[in-house]
Amino acid sequence: MPAKLGELATQFGCELLGDPQVEVFKVSTLSAAGRGSVSFLANAAYKSQLQATAASVVVLTASDADACPTAVLIADDPYLTYARIASVLFPSPAVISGVHASAVIATSAQIAASAQIAAAVVIGADSVIGEDVFVGPGSVIGDRCTLGTASRLVANVTLVQDVSIGRRTIVHPGAVLGADGFGNARTDSGWFKVPQVGGLRIGDDVEIGANTTIDRGAIDDTVIENGVRLDNLIQIAHNVRIGEHTAIAATVGISGSVVIGKRCMLSGRAGVFGHVTICDDVILGAAAIATRDITEPGFYAAHFPAEKSSDWKQKVARFRRIGKLVERVKQLEKVNKNNDG
Amino acid sequence: MPAKLGELATQFGCELLGDPQVEVFKVSTLSAAGRGSVSFLANAAYKSQLQATAASVVVLTASDADACPTAVLIADDPYLTYARIASVLFPSPAVISGVHASAVIATSAQIAASAQIAAAVVIGADSVIGEDVFVGPGSVIGDRCTLGTASRLVANVTLVQDVSIGRRTIVHPGAVLGADGFGNARTDSGWFKVPQVGGLRIGDDVEIGANTTIDRGAIDDTVIENGVRLDNLIQIAHNVRIGEHTAIAATVGISGSVVIGKRCMLSGRAGVFGHVTICDDVILGAAAIATRDITEPGFYAAHFPAEKSSDWKQKVARFRRIGKLVERVKQLEKVNKNNDG
Amino acid sequence: MPAKLGELATQFGCELLGDPQVEVFKVSTLSAAGRGSVSFLANAAYKSQLQATAASVVVLTASDADACPTAVLIADDPYLTYARIASVLFPSPAVISGVHASAVIATSAQIAASAQIAAAVVIGADSVIGEDVFVGPGSVIGDRCTLGTASRLVANVTLVQDVSIGRRTIVHPGAVLGADGFGNARTDSGWFKVPQVGGLRIGDDVEIGANTTIDRGAIDDTVIENGVRLDNLIQIAHNVRIGEHTAIAATVGISGSVVIGKRCMLSGRAGVFGHVTICDDVILGAAAIATRDITEPGFYAAHFPAEKSSDWKQKVARFRRIGKLVERVKQLEKVNKNNDG
Repeated sequence: MPAKLGELATQFGCELLGDPQVEVFKVSTLSAAGRGSVSFLANAAYKSQLQATAASVVVLTASDADACPTAVLIADDPYLTYARIASVLFPSPAVISGVHASAVIATSAQIAASAQIAAAVVIGADSVIGEDVFVGPGSVIGDRCTLGTASRLVANVTLVQDVSIGRRTIVHPGAVLGADGFGNARTDSGWFKVPQVGGLRIGDDVEIGANTTIDRGAIDDTVIENGVRLDNLIQIAHNVRIGEHTAIAATVGISGSVVIGKRCMLSGRAGVFGHVTICDDVILGAAAIATRDITEPGFYAAHFPAEKSSDWKQKVARFRRIGKLVERVKQLEKVNKNNDG
Repeated sequence: MPAKLGELATQFGCELLGDPQVEVFKVSTLSAAGRGSVSFLANAAYKSQLQATAASVVVLTASDADACPTAVLIADDPYLTYARIASVLFPSPAVISGVHASAVIATSAQIAASAQIAAAVVIGADSVIGEDVFVGPGSVIGDRCTLGTASRLVANVTLVQDVSIGRRTIVHPGAVLGADGFGNARTDSGWFKVPQVGGLRIGDDVEIGANTTIDRGAIDDTVIENGVRLDNLIQIAHNVRIGEHTAIAATVGISGSVVIGKRCMLSGRAGVFGHVTICDDVILGAAAIATRDITEPGFYAAHFPAEKSSDWKQKVARFRRIGKLVERVKQLEKVNKNNDG
Repeated sequence: MPAKLGELATQFGCELLGDPQVEVFKVSTLSAAGRGSVSFLANAAYKSQLQATAASVVVLTASDADACPTAVLIADDPYLTYARIASVLFPSPAVISGVHASAVIATSAQIAASAQIAAAVVIGADSVIGEDVFVGPGSVIGDRCTLGTASRLVANVTLVQDVSIGRRTIVHPGAVLGADGFGNARTDSGWFKVPQVGGLRIGDDVEIGANTTIDRGAIDDTVIENGVRLDNLIQIAHNVRIGEHTAIAATVGISGSVVIGKRCMLSGRAGVFGHVTICDDVILGAAAIATRDITEPGFYAAHFPAEKSSDWKQKVARFRRIGKLVERVKQLEKVNKNNDG
């Protein structure tokens, strides 16, 4: 919904240089902005675009204000303030209470009066759907699941069983929450399936990306704490615990019984070995695999950037002969020593 | 549907050595072929199987024709010609116009008369389904989506919102198109969700694999150009642009705001860092991660082949001591220099 | 369902030290156990928790029995015996025969009288659903699929077409089985889709994880043999064959036409290049990519553990100069030789 610059300045505590009556109703990049656009400058790389922008207002820091030809909203953290303004212009979709005629709901399930259950939804026994919850089309909720107030399953989400989800948590399509973990005991004639009887507990204000999978626990529960952000196509195995406000990028894989602290950030394709514990405030770089406990906050890495294949192959060939190189150096040292002696 | 060798030779401009009246109705490998089989030889590794084949016809190059005991169709590119013949024998499934009684369609959605909407489909407001489109069972199409002529959602596909798909594009099951990108602004008390308001535009003749995810843009659109081929379980983040006829293998991850050129090929498990631009005609090898712009066509790589664990561990241990090795060489050079002096 | 210790001892051939009349009805970790709990000790790391456990019974080896304050069941393999006991306490969910009113089933499909077809299921032409099969809510089964006795699609599973599944096989939500493989022939104007006409055959007692994808064959079938265990988010391309009792961890990718032997184990994020053959009893370590045939059983690896980013970057920089280091050693050797001569 549209807003006036003066209202936004007041609401978010920004200094406004410009006409408080001007109305904005969309968000744009600096280069694509036009009348009614809110834009922002948070990265020096885009400063060159400031001069030519046609935005109605640009959110930026005080130091950039002079360079801007349009109205400005001055903020300490322009990206965050932009995000807050965008959430005013584009509020979450309204929940329209009611159960679609095509939904199939177990008689023992409880659906709050203000919840919206969309078409082609199936809800199992003893599940509890809270106030202002949105269960999007095609979603399947198994037995004994609970959805906290104002949580949102966008569409085609599967909650297998024994999954509890907190307030305002968002789950994107294709996510599978609470499936059996990968538990197999070896026998002489193959694998015996270890019954997976734990649950999955997800906190408040969590966001879970498309096609991400989080297994329920083998015995105890898998736990995702408040404020955690998970991108798409992430695997989280049984009995993992992820600490508050940790953010995990797409295609990361977390093995069973891993504990990750608060405010960690895992980059794309990172991974963690089973039973490893990672303390608070750790950053794991792209494709880095944590193979043992990390007890000190900081940035951990382990990958080689892509380079021309011919150059890379040469390095790999030399790496394969690194043992011989060590031998050659040892030999040289021996000769030198003999020469000394 | 069956075809006669003479018809196929004419249709695809091949020389036929054999009876034009012979009918073929299936495709087979050289070793499993029998009466009615079309087979092909495109890889020298299989040439030894030629002598014993029982195919009705083999598609191959002129140089291999003499070695073949059966009828042959001579083609410059046997694999491509085989593919074209197979598409005659096995045409795309027919679209049977109509809307299944169990589909739930918003009153403002427009469905072309020739389109087929299968069972358990849900279609949102203001979405437009073109002529000869197939929307497979269980698919969910959100608001403001468009499907171009003869496009095909196989089954259980999710188009979240604001997704446009071109003509003849195929989307395989479990793909999630147009979900919110991973946009989070840091605050003192955790992450603030940055509204994702862009769309997703997909061109003509694109193919998107099973369980692949493509997020819509944060502000501008995410774009997949004509003729792009995406395999299964690929992640494409918000505001990515993928150029025409680029092919991406399974489990690749592309970070936000990446631009990939035309005719690129990304091998399995490759990845690209956020905001990186890759020019046309680049090949990225298996598991190679592009961490900076690539401005020159060619083959880029960065992975170590698996080897016996004991050998590998020894190399890793030496790699970990590479700094010491450098020191030792430096020391040797110093001694030598002193000896010289 | 509850069981008495005496019954369990008899059923699984364990020695019981304790009261055979005591009833157990849940499973717990040693530290969380209470009255009615079965717990187990299979990992020396947890032995310290034995003394304080309040379990009704602990499954352990004879050598640990003395250290346990509670009743014990003595087993050679406590984890396997625990798993068998857990499967008595928590049997697979019962199948309640019948077809839900909301399911849409082709007239040519055959559904066994004892099968359960849940809500919002769609079943295509000529598919055959065996006795005691469970087809969970939201699942889509295409044409010409067969489900063997007591197999189980948990929910939202997609069988695209021409998929046969054996007895007692379990498929978790979001799995896509039998989609088209990634077959593209190059033309001057882009990619031509190679028709995928093979099927997918899955054996008995297989388990397939959430959001895993297995493509059907291009010409011949893709094959998953009996007893194979696949975790979540795995990609298996067309014409792969996976041998009996092989177990594959989450996020692994297997390229087309790969053959993997029996009893192999692939760790998380491992991968295999196209057309590679791996013999029986191979273990592939985390993130290890097999680039050529493996003909000898054993453990194969290729990854670097994550370490402090500053340390890692230094090593990478030295690795990038490894060619220069080799040159320097060569130079030193030359000098030494000259000195010798």
